Parts: sequence; C-alpha cells; structure tokens
Amino acid sequence: MITLAVDAMGGDHGLAVTVPGAVSFLQQQPDVHLIMVGDEIPLNQALAEAKAPMSRITVQHASQVVEMDEAPQLALKNKKDSSMRVAVNQVKEGKAQAAVSAGNTGALMATARFVLKTVEGIERPAIAKFIPGKNNHFTLALDLGANVDCTPEQLVQFAVIGSELVQALHPEKGSPRVGLVNVGHEDIKGTDTVKQTHKLLQGSKLNFIGNVEGGDIFNAGVDVVVADGFVGNIMLKTMEGAVKFIGSSIKQEFERNLFTKASALIALPALKGFKNRFDPRRFNGAIFLGLRGVVVKSHGGTDAVGFAFALEEACHEARAASIERIEQGVAAQLAALAAVRAEHAAADEAAE
Amino acid sequence: MITLAVDAMGGDHGLAVTVPGAVSFLQQQPDVHLIMVGDEIPLNQALAEAKAPMSRITVQHASQVVEMDEAPQLALKNKKDSSMRVAVNQVKEGKAQAAVSAGNTGALMATARFVLKTVEGIERPAIAKFIPGKNNHFTLALDLGANVDCTPEQLVQFAVIGSELVQALHPEKGSPRVGLVNVGHEDIKGTDTVKQTHKLLQGSKLNFIGNVEGGDIFNAGVDVVVADGFVGNIMLKTMEGAVKFIGSSIKQEFERNLFTKASALIALPALKGFKNRFDPRRFNGAIFLGLRGVVVKSHGGTDAVGFAFALEEACHEARAASIERIEQGVAAQLAALAAVRAEHAAADEAAE
Repeated sequence: MITLAVDAMGGDHGLAVTVPGAVSFLQQQPDVHLIMVGDEIPLNQALAEAKAPMSRITVQHASQVVEMDEAPQLALKNKKDSSMRVAVNQVKEGKAQAAVSAGNTGALMATARFVLKTVEGIERPAIAKFIPGKNNHFTLALDLGANVDCTPEQLVQFAVIGSELVQALHPEKGSPRVGLVNVGHEDIKGTDTVKQTHKLLQGSKLNFIGNVEGGDIFNAGVDVVVADGFVGNIMLKTMEGAVKFIGSSIKQEFERNLFTKASALIALPALKGFKNRFDPRRFNGAIFLGLRGVVVKSHGGTDAVGFAFALEEACHEARAASIERIEQGVAAQLAALAAVRAEHAAADEAAE
Repeated sequence: MITLAVDAMGGDHGLAVTVPGAVSFLQQQPDVHLIMVGDEIPLNQALAEAKAPMSRITVQHASQVVEMDEAPQLALKNKKDSSMRVAVNQVKEGKAQAAVSAGNTGALMATARFVLKTVEGIERPAIAKFIPGKNNHFTLALDLGANVDCTPEQLVQFAVIGSELVQALHPEKGSPRVGLVNVGHEDIKGTDTVKQTHKLLQGSKLNFIGNVEGGDIFNAGVDVVVADGFVGNIMLKTMEGAVKFIGSSIKQEFERNLFTKASALIALPALKGFKNRFDPRRFNGAIFLGLRGVVVKSHGGTDAVGFAFALEEACHEARAASIERIEQGVAAQLAALAAVRAEHAAADEAAE
C-alpha cells in the first residue's frame, strides 16, 4: 500500500483544488492512502463537502502556510509548521513514500533539500519531467530550473540520477540512453562546461549516446536528456509556449469561415484527441530528483484535474523507484566514474 | 533596383535547388536582379533548362566550391575563388546589396566576417531569425548559434543590432521592445552573465522590457529577444522539433479510424491552412547580423520553394535596412551606453 503526503494548502487555489484533485485521484487508485496536511478545520470541512473517502485519508494538522511569493530561506526558517514542511516531514519519517505540493517552488526545493538531504554523491537536486514524444515515448529531461549554473560533475550527477530513475521505472528497457543537450551532434561542439561533461559521460558506465539537439527530445531516440537548469528551463518553457501557440493557430484555422467552422464539428473526434493528447494538465507534476525521498511539484495554477495528475506522477515514482535501490545504483555509477578518472589522472601523471 | 548575389553551388543539392528557386523568386519580384555565382558551364546550362529570365540574371564564374563539411578556416584559406566567397565579395564591392548561400554555415560565417567585417562597435556577428507568433507578429531572435559563449557586452551588442534591424524594417512601430531570455521574469533571476546583461540593458536607451521566458517569444509582446548562441540555438531547435512533432501528432489523430480519415477530407482547407502556416520552408533564411552587409543563410537541405523564401528574406533586408543607417543607429546606442557606464563608474569612484 502506497501512502502519499499532500500539501493541501499549497498552490494558487489551495483546498479548492487539492481536495477535489485528491478525491478524483483516490477514485482511480484503490490501493493508495493519502495524508492530507493543512489547517484541519477548513480541511475537514472541504473533505466532507467533497464526500472524500475518509477510510483512505488521514488529516494531519499544520498551523502555517508558505506564501507563493515568500523567500525560500525565510519559509525554511519561519514556517516549521507549514503544510509544505509537514508534508515533506511525512516522507522523512517514513509515514509516506512521496510528498506532493502545488506551493512555492523555491520554498519546496529548499525544504525538501533541508529535510530529506540529497542522495550520497549528488551535490544538488534537480527538477525533472517526462516529456512526451513520438511513438508514445517519454524522455526524462533535467535540470529544468533548480540550478542555473552547473559544473560538469553536477551535470554528470544529473545524468546518473536520471538514468537510475528511468531504469527503476522501466527495468524491461535495459540501460537508459542518456543524451547531453548541445548545439550540434559533433563531439567538439558547445561551451567548455558542456565539452568537459561530454568527456566525463564518455568515460562513465552510463549508456551515453552523445549530444542531442533541442528537437531530438521528441524523437524517441533518447531516454534521459541532461542540461543545466538555465538551458533546461528555457527548453521546457519554449516547448510549452510552442504547444499553446500551435493549438491556438489550429483553432484559428477552423474559425476562418463558415465552411471551416462546420468542418470543425465533423473533425471534432480527431481534434479532441489531439487536444487531450497535449492537455498541459496531463503533464503536470515535476519530480525533484536526487533527494532521499520522492517529492513532486504540481503547477501552482493547476485545477483539480491537473492536481490529480501530479498525485499520479508521485504515486508512479513511489511504487517503482525505491530510494534504496536508486542510492545503490548511483553509488555504483559514481564509483565507476571515480575509478576511470583516477586512471586518467594516473596516466596523465605518467605522461608528464 | 535591388541586386542579390547568390551562391549557386551551395547547399546539399546545389544548382538543382538554387536555380529553380531563383527563377521562382524572380517571377515574384519584378524589380530584382540576381548575380548567380558558380561554375559557369553547368550554371548556364541549368539556367537555360529552367528558362530563367536572363535579362535579370548575371552569371559570375567561380572555380571552387566549399564542401558542406569543410573546416571553416580551411575554406577561408584555400577557397578564395569559391562560389560562396565570390558571392560575398559582390556585396563588399557594392555590386549586390545582399548575398545568399545554402552552403556550410561555419564557412559562410567565417567568410562573411572576414570579407565584410563587423559594424563598428559590434565584436561578433550573430545569427538571427524572425520567429512567427500570435496575431501575425514576428519576433527577431538572436543569437541562434554563432557564439556559444558571450560576454554581457556582446549580448547588449546583439540587442542593439537586433533593435536597429527591426526599427529599419518597421519604422512605423516605434522603438522595438527588447527582451532578455531568462528563467523567470524577476530581475534577480539567471546566471551572472545574464544578470549583468540585464543591468546594462536597463541603463541603455533601448526599449528594454526586461526578462522573457522561453514561451514569451510566441506572445507578440516583444520584438527582439536576446540570448547567447548556445541557449538561442537550443530554443530554435526545440521550437522546430515541437512543430514537427505536433504536426505528426495531428496527422495521427486524423488517421486513427475510417471516420476520422473521412473527417480529415472535410477538414482539408483548415488543415492545409495550418500546414502552410507552419511550413518550415516559409521560415527559411537566417540573417547574419552585425556585418557591414546583408548575408542570408538558407537551410542546406531545403528545396527550391524554401530557397526562394531565403532570397525573399535577403531582398526584404536589402530593401529596408541600409547598412549606413544601421551603423549610425548602433553608434548612437553604443555611445549612449558608454556615457551611462562612465557615469556609473564615476559615481562608484565617488562613493568609495
């Protein structure tokens, strides 16, 4: 039985979204239990109004709420009884296998990192997301914005942790193919940091397939793509913007005249299929990766449907990706990498 | 009368694409003259076969061709009589107002920079493109890959030259709105380089609207977006990949079953309108910006339709954007910026 801890107060809409989202999620997942964390009086009231299945819900009181624009370090210092912090505490204490919040991203990252700590050998957590592509393939992209500047070592750590997650979720697929986001496929391309990362990845035991360009993420040819948080964030927002713009352009073409308007009615099943496929709510839920526990961030402005998808994402990770197993995998990868680097250093020394 | 110099041998398909592309372009533009540069025997033959209007075409012989995978510096050194080099020479010598090539990007950039030099005050040329967005608005994005590492000063120079180009093309619109690509709208976001660039832009006389995120480029709220060539290239490729993937997904939805297939026939006008709107050939033609002359790079693998669009892009720049005017504008902007910086330096000194 999986238990998720939910920050019931987080997000732009708080209880109005988290409670109906949780109820709809529980209807889909009969074997999951939720710990709903928040101000117990309004929370219990909202749960009663939504006719929530209380046999599978525990209400955990928390007296504070982190504001959406609060400085992360202040939230960490002053809001020790916030719904966000208490939800993450449930994971730390082993009462839940994952925590989900639609609250302030920076505060959630600071809290998660402080409470759960990073996996041994991983300096910083990253934000990761599965991006849909051709043939129903999903590519895990990271970092999507947690770290704007990264060293080559940190980028390699992202590759390792991303690869371990994908392997845990899809053991049947073999070693995940890892790509490095770059401006061309040739080895010699890119900034100094990217070139050094490329070399380190080549020396690793990961299934490194080389550089990938911005568009390759949709082509089902790679399972994990790694970039620093600056580039990753801009890629993600560019994709989201492109999907929105293209969607509105299709709508415009069908609204051009009476004939195209009529044709839209007939084309409705296909158009709905398309719309559903790219509904951003379906892709809600970013994973904070590299922590000793699963934390999923829902979009702050999402609705109940989107929030239920974030809960599903967390549930999916919690089922498949045991932290112990990921820790073992990361340790093995990093040990192999260290051995290769020691060898290189020895060879360099001998050559001098 | 506008004259364009065309590298007739460049690109994956050479004459088979450049000649029919040139002929179709000349049919659309009655007041343009072309200097077609290449090996004169096959070139004349291809022009005759395509029934090209020879009253508006001059053939300029060039004995060499730059290979698509040739190292730029070697091409520059060893191919002084290449069709690419001779085409750029036409601009330098004032015989043409712009040069167009579908050849090796690196070699074209090296050649253009060597032959034409950069505008006074601009350290490095950038690759720029107009990206389509909402309400038929186009946003100029640069740098799209010429410079993977940029200093804040160089990023500001890109903003200046981009702003001057847009102003020259659309004087009716007033001062172009300039945005800096970043991971959030708040001033404090980003890498150190981006933060410093933000400060410099705030002190400039440009119409700087602040940070823009990856998706803002489609929202018609900004006229020029600036990024280093690493980020810009990844944005561009991500967009192109997203358009392709979304297009193929729409196709799949309409091929799902007999009913959706039939509905696609009825929806054909709208679907065709959409397809045409996002046809990558229509957006062929990247501008090398910051040079003392107009150079446009066509995609190497494009067909005749796409090549004609690259010629149109060059023609458009050549008509509106006189280099003298851009040089004056750049000089004024950079002088204003230098004055502000000197003031700041004096204030800092006084404060110490």
